[in-house]
Amino acid sequence: MTVYKFALADVSFERSPGQQADIFTGNVLDQHHGGPVTVGFGRYGPNQILETTIAVHDTMVILEGGVSVTSNGETFNAGPGEIIAMQDGDRVTIRSHEEGAVTAYVTYPHWQEAES
Amino acid sequence: MTVYKFALADVSFERSPGQQADIFTGNVLDQHHGGPVTVGFGRYGPNQILETTIAVHDTMVILEGGVSVTSNGETFNAGPGEIIAMQDGDRVTIRSHEEGAVTAYVTYPHWQEAES
Repeated sequence: MTVYKFALADVSFERSPGQQADIFTGNVLDQHHGGPVTVGFGRYGPNQILETTIAVHDTMVILEGGVSVTSNGETFNAGPGEIIAMQDGDRVTIRSHEEGAVTAYVTYPHWQEAES
Repeated sequence: MTVYKFALADVSFERSPGQQADIFTGNVLDQHHGGPVTVGFGRYGPNQILETTIAVHDTMVILEGGVSVTSNGETFNAGPGEIIAMQDGDRVTIRSHEEGAVTAYVTYPHWQEAES
């Protein structure tokens, strides 16, 4: 097996599927690499909103800016160095703050397979 | 299921098992919570060295400071916002830089079960 190092500059961002907001994801490790988890970076423009039902276990580490995640009437605000962990089946609304946000994420299993 | 938010201030750090270096880990989500992954924070003093064989898939996000990870004669340097992904069975040497390091990690499966 192999050790990988990834930086934001390595990422090819694509618009997060199923929505038109200024929210982009870029996998750096996924189902094509043979491991159990998908790793990637997310980029949110200012004040964007994503409503979705999480299809995997999704751990999000905030690298820059901030997001608020609302689920079941409860809102969690997270800034740089903080972690949001969402579970399979959670209905969430993710809002980026006015400065936008950059995140790193790890999903188990692979989110692109779970959503397809 | 539930959405969680974690900050460094939530963490109860313990010395990383099997070694005496100034390296501490603190799980915030693990086998006790019923999910598939362990999530936590790591804290490294300056110029610490950890030699280990990785027992899980371990994704490490550098939050502060820096680390170098050497495996199979190749060294990866990572600083804030960068990611190191290590696989089950990788023999690695992790060195913290002179400013130490703070990391977030996600392991699949749970590292405390894999190492016990």
